[in-house]
This record gives sequence, C-alpha cells and structure tokens, in this order.
Amino acid sequence: MTGNRQVRLAARPQGLPTEADFDVTEAPAPEPADGQLVVQVRFISLDPAMRGWMNDAPSYIPPVRIGEVMRAGAVGRVVASRHPDYAEGDHVSGALGVQQYAVSDGSGLIKVDPEAAALPVYLGALGMTGMTAYFGLLEIGRPEPGQTVVVSGAAGAVGSAVGQIAKLKGCRAVGIAGGEDKVRFVVEELGFDACIDYKAGDVRAALREHAPDGVDVYFDNVGNPILDAVLTHIARGARVVICGAIAQYNADTVEGPSNYLQLLVRRSTMQGFVVFDYADRYAQAAREIAGWMADGRFTSLQDIVCGSVDTFPQVLQQLFDGDNVGKLVLEVQHV
Amino acid sequence: MTGNRQVRLAARPQGLPTEADFDVTEAPAPEPADGQLVVQVRFISLDPAMRGWMNDAPSYIPPVRIGEVMRAGAVGRVVASRHPDYAEGDHVSGALGVQQYAVSDGSGLIKVDPEAAALPVYLGALGMTGMTAYFGLLEIGRPEPGQTVVVSGAAGAVGSAVGQIAKLKGCRAVGIAGGEDKVRFVVEELGFDACIDYKAGDVRAALREHAPDGVDVYFDNVGNPILDAVLTHIARGARVVICGAIAQYNADTVEGPSNYLQLLVRRSTMQGFVVFDYADRYAQAAREIAGWMADGRFTSLQDIVCGSVDTFPQVLQQLFDGDNVGKLVLEVQHV
Repeated sequence: MTGNRQVRLAARPQGLPTEADFDVTEAPAPEPADGQLVVQVRFISLDPAMRGWMNDAPSYIPPVRIGEVMRAGAVGRVVASRHPDYAEGDHVSGALGVQQYAVSDGSGLIKVDPEAAALPVYLGALGMTGMTAYFGLLEIGRPEPGQTVVVSGAAGAVGSAVGQIAKLKGCRAVGIAGGEDKVRFVVEELGFDACIDYKAGDVRAALREHAPDGVDVYFDNVGNPILDAVLTHIARGARVVICGAIAQYNADTVEGPSNYLQLLVRRSTMQGFVVFDYADRYAQAAREIAGWMADGRFTSLQDIVCGSVDTFPQVLQQLFDGDNVGKLVLEVQHV
Repeated sequence: MTGNRQVRLAARPQGLPTEADFDVTEAPAPEPADGQLVVQVRFISLDPAMRGWMNDAPSYIPPVRIGEVMRAGAVGRVVASRHPDYAEGDHVSGALGVQQYAVSDGSGLIKVDPEAAALPVYLGALGMTGMTAYFGLLEIGRPEPGQTVVVSGAAGAVGSAVGQIAKLKGCRAVGIAGGEDKVRFVVEELGFDACIDYKAGDVRAALREHAPDGVDVYFDNVGNPILDAVLTHIARGARVVICGAIAQYNADTVEGPSNYLQLLVRRSTMQGFVVFDYADRYAQAAREIAGWMADGRFTSLQDIVCGSVDTFPQVLQQLFDGDNVGKLVLEVQHV
C-alpha cells in the first residue's frame, strides 16, 4: 500500500465534463482509526447521474463540493480494518469515490461475494444499475403481462436490464438505441422483441410499427427528443417512468417534453423516482436477479475500461459519447 | 319558435380563434322526430377545452368538423318532445352546441332543476366545471388534510372550485392568478389562504413564502411558464394534476415543462385526466357540492354575458384574454 491518488472536483463543468474539471491529488495511504476500515478500490461505476452531482443545485443528494473527492459507486477489497464487522480480505460495495483507497466507518457499505459473481456485476445487475431498473420498472412502471414496455438507452446499463426484466414479467419489450450494432445486441443478445434505431429514422413511425396498441410503460433514460416522440404514442393509462435524461444533462437548459399534454389526452402518469428509496428491498431484488442470471435468463454485460483513477475523466466522457454497451466500469489497476 | 341560428366551425384557427373561424347559419326551427326532443338553448358554457376541439388532432374526443355546429356544453328548456322521458318545460344540460335550438335523442342529457339552482350554475359548480375540479383534485391530486394545494387560474371557473374544495377537505389552498383584483377575490371571497399574483413578480419567491414546506398538490390549468415555476418548489411525493394549459392552447408550439426532472428529484407524479371518465359519479359529486353551497361554504361565481349565439366568437376571445372571474357563460337571449 503506497500513496492514495484521489480525483477531486476542481470546477463545476459547463456542458460536458472535461479533464480540467478535475484535479488528481496524492495523499499518504490511509490508516483506519478505531471503528474504521480501509478499502482498496477495484472497480468504479460510471453513471449518468454523476453529471448532476457536479452541479451546484439542490437535488436528491447534495452536490459534490469543489475540492471534494468525486462521488462514485465502487467495489473494492478491505485491506485494513479496525471495524468489528469487516475483516481484511472482505469485499464491499458502496459510495467509495474516485480514489485508490477509501476510509469508511462502514455506513452505506454492503459486503459482496466475489465467488457468487464477478466484482463488476455488483456495480451492474446486482448493484445500483440493476436496482434502478428493477424498482423503476416494477414499482413505478407497474407493467402487466402482455403490456408493451418501451425503454430508451436500451443498450445501456439500466435500459438493458429494464427490457430483460419486462420480458421475464411477461411483457413485450421494445428498446430504443442508437446505431445498428446496439440494436442488434438488444434484440439478439438481450432478447427484446424489437429495438428502434433512433439514428436511422422516424421514431414515431417505428413506434407505430413495434407498439401497435400504444406504449403502456415508457422507461425514460434519455429525455428529449425521444421522450416527446414516445409521448405521442402512449396508450391510455400509460406510466412514463422518469429515470434520467442523459441527452439533457450536459445542456445549458433542459428541454421539457412539449407533448406532455398527451398525459391528459391518454389519462397517463409521468413519475420520477430515486432508487435509494428502495434500499431496504435491495437484497430481495438482487436475489431475484441473481436467480435469473443463474438460470441463464438474464444477461449482465459490463464494459470494463482498465486504467487508473487518473483515467476517470476520459472514461466519464465515453459514458456521454453514447458508444458503450452495457454497464461502463473503470477497473482501477493497483501496480 | 322562429328560425335556428347556428354557429359552425368555418376554419381551423391559427392561434387565437377569431370571428373568421366561424360561420353563422340559419335553418328552419327544428321539429322533433319520434324519440327526439328539441331544446331551446339558454346558457352556453365557454371552456378552454374548446380550443383543442377546433384542432384537427387526435385527442380524447374527436375534433369538431369544418362546417359542424361548434360543440359546447349548455343548458336549455325542452320546447317540444316526442321522447318518453322528456316533457315540454323540462330543463336539461348537455353538449347542446352553439345554436338556438338543439335536437337530441336524449343521449348525454341530464335533467336539471331550475328551482334547486340557477341554470348557469349547472354549467359551473354543478356542471362540468365543478366535476373537473372535484375529480381532478380528489382522484388525481389526492390531497391529505394539512397539505398544501396550489392551483393556477385560481379566479377562473375550475381553479376557484379547486381551492374551495381543498379548503373544505382540510388543506391549505394557495391560488395563482393574474392581477390584484383577482388575487383579492380569491382570498377574500373564496377563502383561499393566499393567492400569488403572477403578473406582480417572482412566482418562485412567492411560493417559498406561501408554501414554505413545498407544494403537495399542484392543479395546473395554465401550463408554462407557471408550471415550470411550481415544479421548482414541489414537495417530496407531490402530485401535479394536468387539467389544462390555457396559456399554451393558442401557441403554435407548446412549451414543455423544462423542470420536469424535479419529478425525479422529488419523487413526484404528473398525471393527466379527462373528467368524462367519472361520469358515473357526477351525481354523487354534484350532491356534495350542492350541499356545500346550501351551507354557504362554497361559492359558485358565474360571469354571464348576455347576447345571442352570434356573440359566441367574441365571448370566446374574452375567455382567452384572461379577464373574467368565475365561470364564463353566454346567455342566449330569445326575443
């Protein structure tokens, strides 16, 4: 255990975050005080929500302060412990931050078993990503068997899980993604009934084809213009789940859905949620998803970039480029 | 009974409807066929929803066709009947249209009692206006005693009823209206706890003052920019009821609520509704509202313009000018 390199927020980004918005600092390797443990960070989760955490605006969680270690979900290995519940060699998941070593008093940490699933899966299907898909779809979307579930960002971390859960619950799953490769992946590898390539043409026409009776549940990860397109085609009593708006996060001003009056015409609901509210049910959801994975009925795909914490700003840009498929994870190599 | 003057839709309006969008025709006075009745139209309801009915766009109800008598809720008196359930002298309410005499087979008609309430009240508190406020607030908004209900268009037909029902259900009622006179009316005559004058200044600052714990239920009649302002101040778990968007109806393109991601941050719901879905419960709701009126706990204010069916286009413009207080009604004088 050498020094601890840490990525700190240096400035509030304007638009897309750049390297200039972060500072990398190095501190002595931490030692645990009584009641603390030290975690060597192994895999860092890259999430669209990170962009919101960098803004100085009230939200469901306080913004990252300037100078503070960038917030991130991560998994790692306990390398020193003076905490009664954790021993050296345990693996944990939690908001460990973009740094090589995290000091924790154990709050918010979950022990994970590297024998049961590869560590990055605890950031994907068995982590916040899977929980977001599971609770957003089932608690907010409330799809019924036979209904049509449409999800944007369908090749992404949350979207790929949403469509698969919809299928497992007896629904028709239609994805929206950008590019032929993603579309093929979503249908052929993930088993969606159809996937619309928003880069290839008219999303509204494709929705009429693939959701002929209208969209019962729309799980939105991207915001406009796709949100507006889907709103024109919702079924009566539809549920529109607002999970995120990656297409809007780097914009100076968010574009609102101008077709929101379809909520009136179609007696429909648009509802937002924050996955943290379901923390007391994570374990049950993870067990169900793990069961599907064990049965080969659910695919958790991670897109792992090998690097160091210093690489974080570039990997974050990849997330917003929209090129990755599955859950984007930074592997922190400790040499 | 002389001829029957009828106001027909002549053109699809661009923006605000003008006289040129309507034709007035005259036909012989109608005679009822077997199973029909003829109603002399006495009071015509002016509703923001009329603007949507003039557009050639799919909605919850088919558009008025070019050349068709303009759709309107109205009350009138049966002047001839060959229908077993209706006798000359009965009074009825229904979608009678902008015309002096309507022929009906009775479908959609409700008998009303001019002794129990003045006829225009059957277009206001005891009519579609009251039903819209009642079911929108109680079924979609679901306010709990002690919660804060904010309603826009608070001096208007629906808004004035929403705030009064909120008070009767034990809530704090805060209106949003334009101009000192309306604000005074809403607080002093209708008994709202507060009313914000959106023309006088910063709606967001006023919301912080008058809804210090956030807005639990927002009943939106107007759309942007007020919808966006209220979204910045919703409480956790808030319900945003989309009843209409009068500020948007005459715009070429609707402006969507750019602050819709507050639904996520505040775990809130935006939901639309159409009052017709509650038709089987109108009678029960009207009885409850009539009881409040009899007890002096509910004010139904009608703004009655005396004229003829020919006056309809000008009166419709008054509706969108935003100057009227209470329910705007055209009294059709039969000379």
